[in-house]
Amino acid sequence: MFKKILIANRGEIALRIIRACKELGVETVAVYSEADEQSLHVQLADGAICIGPAAGSDSYLRAERIIAAAEITDVDAIHPGYGFLSEDPDFAEQCEECKIKFIGPNSEHIRQMGDKATARATVAAAGVPTVPGSEGVVKHPEDGLKIAEKIGYPVIIKAVAGGGGRGMRLAHNSISFQKEFTAASSEAEKAFGNGAVYIEKFIEEPRHIEFQILADEHGNVIHLGERDCSIQRRHQKVIEESPSPFMTPELREKMGDAAIKAAKACNYWNAGTIEFLVDKHRNFYFIEMNTRIQVEHPVTEEVTGIDLIKEQFRIASGEKLLLEQKDVQMKGHAIECRICAENPSMNFAPSPGEISLYYPPGGHGVRVDSHIYGGYTIPKYYDSMIAKVITVGRNRELALSRMNRALNEYLIRGIFTNISFAQSIINDPDFVRGNYTTRFIEEFMQRTPKTLFESKHRP
Amino acid sequence: MFKKILIANRGEIALRIIRACKELGVETVAVYSEADEQSLHVQLADGAICIGPAAGSDSYLRAERIIAAAEITDVDAIHPGYGFLSEDPDFAEQCEECKIKFIGPNSEHIRQMGDKATARATVAAAGVPTVPGSEGVVKHPEDGLKIAEKIGYPVIIKAVAGGGGRGMRLAHNSISFQKEFTAASSEAEKAFGNGAVYIEKFIEEPRHIEFQILADEHGNVIHLGERDCSIQRRHQKVIEESPSPFMTPELREKMGDAAIKAAKACNYWNAGTIEFLVDKHRNFYFIEMNTRIQVEHPVTEEVTGIDLIKEQFRIASGEKLLLEQKDVQMKGHAIECRICAENPSMNFAPSPGEISLYYPPGGHGVRVDSHIYGGYTIPKYYDSMIAKVITVGRNRELALSRMNRALNEYLIRGIFTNISFAQSIINDPDFVRGNYTTRFIEEFMQRTPKTLFESKHRP
Repeated sequence: MFKKILIANRGEIALRIIRACKELGVETVAVYSEADEQSLHVQLADGAICIGPAAGSDSYLRAERIIAAAEITDVDAIHPGYGFLSEDPDFAEQCEECKIKFIGPNSEHIRQMGDKATARATVAAAGVPTVPGSEGVVKHPEDGLKIAEKIGYPVIIKAVAGGGGRGMRLAHNSISFQKEFTAASSEAEKAFGNGAVYIEKFIEEPRHIEFQILADEHGNVIHLGERDCSIQRRHQKVIEESPSPFMTPELREKMGDAAIKAAKACNYWNAGTIEFLVDKHRNFYFIEMNTRIQVEHPVTEEVTGIDLIKEQFRIASGEKLLLEQKDVQMKGHAIECRICAENPSMNFAPSPGEISLYYPPGGHGVRVDSHIYGGYTIPKYYDSMIAKVITVGRNRELALSRMNRALNEYLIRGIFTNISFAQSIINDPDFVRGNYTTRFIEEFMQRTPKTLFESKHRP
Repeated sequence: MFKKILIANRGEIALRIIRACKELGVETVAVYSEADEQSLHVQLADGAICIGPAAGSDSYLRAERIIAAAEITDVDAIHPGYGFLSEDPDFAEQCEECKIKFIGPNSEHIRQMGDKATARATVAAAGVPTVPGSEGVVKHPEDGLKIAEKIGYPVIIKAVAGGGGRGMRLAHNSISFQKEFTAASSEAEKAFGNGAVYIEKFIEEPRHIEFQILADEHGNVIHLGERDCSIQRRHQKVIEESPSPFMTPELREKMGDAAIKAAKACNYWNAGTIEFLVDKHRNFYFIEMNTRIQVEHPVTEEVTGIDLIKEQFRIASGEKLLLEQKDVQMKGHAIECRICAENPSMNFAPSPGEISLYYPPGGHGVRVDSHIYGGYTIPKYYDSMIAKVITVGRNRELALSRMNRALNEYLIRGIFTNISFAQSIINDPDFVRGNYTTRFIEEFMQRTPKTLFESKHRP
């Protein structure tokens, strides 16, 4: 096992990784921007190095500064968390060249699975169902039109380098196709510096269901069941749960096998997530693979009892997986709500600022992963997620009643948050029945008066 | 199920009960003393009634005020928590007379098991092993001397109405017996208004191991395994764990059967605890029964997945137990540390006052039950316990590494706490090996420099 590692991230995930290290007896080095000096990840790490000004592009995205901090502090390994450099193959490669272990897959895995078209081709060749569509990049709108006609409307045009909904357009017929194709491409060019797009069939009543996998460097791969992440706002997950209310044992076996096949298709190691869309007939289609830990990993930890960050450390240090597939049991039900500093009444505008009063929920079946505290000032420079509340119960009903209670209890004063918004979702009759698709929030917002999910606590 | 209940308590247990109610959809009424207006249990209950001045004897111990508050608010039931009126048979009887359900056993159970000599006689008649000693109260020192000679020295002289170590004396031989007998009796008279004492054999290398039971009004009794509560300072538990590192499957079966017999011996219902002493040869002896929820109940909840407060509600509303003995499974390991506002360097003197900075630990496998928050002032009038930290893991080693990490993370500024003291215990090699008795803390304090467990954070 490593003696000392550097955490190339901030916020709750940096703290999450520090916690795992402390339990493993591994020394930690935090890196931080000038805006993050007061963050708990800095205070709780054994050492900390400032790597630049507030903006992510001047600090957490500066690979050379992070490598330098790692060299100076003589760490064995770097954990990248999620976001920032976690899926940057060049960063992983630089770590490899500097003989610092990158806690993740090797740079080739990231490169291969990070390009969505290549990822799709790779897993399709291994027999994993993918969404019918173009074979890789479509350069000309005329070629796209032919493909769209063949697979049938509606179709989606997606940026190869995309994420978070940018560079993604829906075309309902041949008349609108060309316009949407051009819009997707130019949006992608603007957002990612890469205008390449591909085309996919639109899935009916889709659910976003992803499988957590663990794979070691010795070719062993297991899956830890699924997470239903269909509750998304503008392609950003808001609420996740495990198991999925839509799952059947048969479907889990089929999708789990497919997830393992997908990971084996690229000789992957590390924790990883295989994301699928599942249609109303329970057909499932691979959409992408995330080659890092996910925000929503705690729901899997809570139902399987497996600490995913510690497993990442074990795998990165060359150990074999401790468990075989038959040893993995899902027990009970877990739900996660992402708590964000944002104002639902103002179109979810970010709400940074000082937290004047803070009381996180506690007690039986409640887990909070967060780096904030009373008196802490949330900087304006980063993602608005400030905490994750995870509740567990013997069944979904219990986990939901706990979430309701926990969110009621959660006091964050001084800023706006989405707590009331999350509460109104988990009390929605369709959500309570488990009857939802990726379009849930869009429809929910149309039919729900804003006053119901306005932030209760004003600054 | 009840529609509305009153919580006749304060602090973390009041909050714990409110949390269960919120998850069950039961309305709550808090009662509070003038010193507790800012307490979270008042803020989080649906309604709250002030029942008098700060001193417990003017508020939380005033049965008539609590009954009046219950009448005014028209509640169906009263949950007494632990301490205060929870084991007062007169209070339970008053509730019965006013047709307000007392969430606990009936007043007769409390009366019968609250008198230690009667309790011992009751369970002994049912075949549960008890510590050899006098049959009930010993009035004259001469009679006591004869009994002591018969069962062999050393013997303990204990107050019938005792608790917390008061009215308890050890006699090593016939010479000191008379002096200790008189001392115990007069101490008991002073502390409890009742000088009656009894005599017991002294147990070699004793461990305090208790069994959690659940019993319904229909005669069904199950046990939920044991808690090892040997880590005590002056007969006050400090650290508890489940399972006990000393337990074997055979002993668990024998002690569990005895615990069920003890509960059946008085036709008990409610959650309850059967406390045993276990000697170094794994002989076990009933010492007393607690007819209420215990401070340390969370460790049992964490290893069994059963919410004990909710079970109390179910039982009190007349429902049958959902589980049979064969359905109860202990999984993993849980440890609890009681966090107290006290100064270990000043002989554990209470340290009330305002909390200037507060950050409770969180993340995977960590539960905190507490009513305090940043800016809250701990009143000087009550028990010094301000929080319970419970950690869970697949095994004891993991639960311990989590506890270590959680205590390291716990920030409470403005007052002294016993956090460093608890940490130095859980890192003690004997404790780590699970090799300890009820005398652990006494011995530990003799061999450990005080500076090791001084409060790190001064007010």
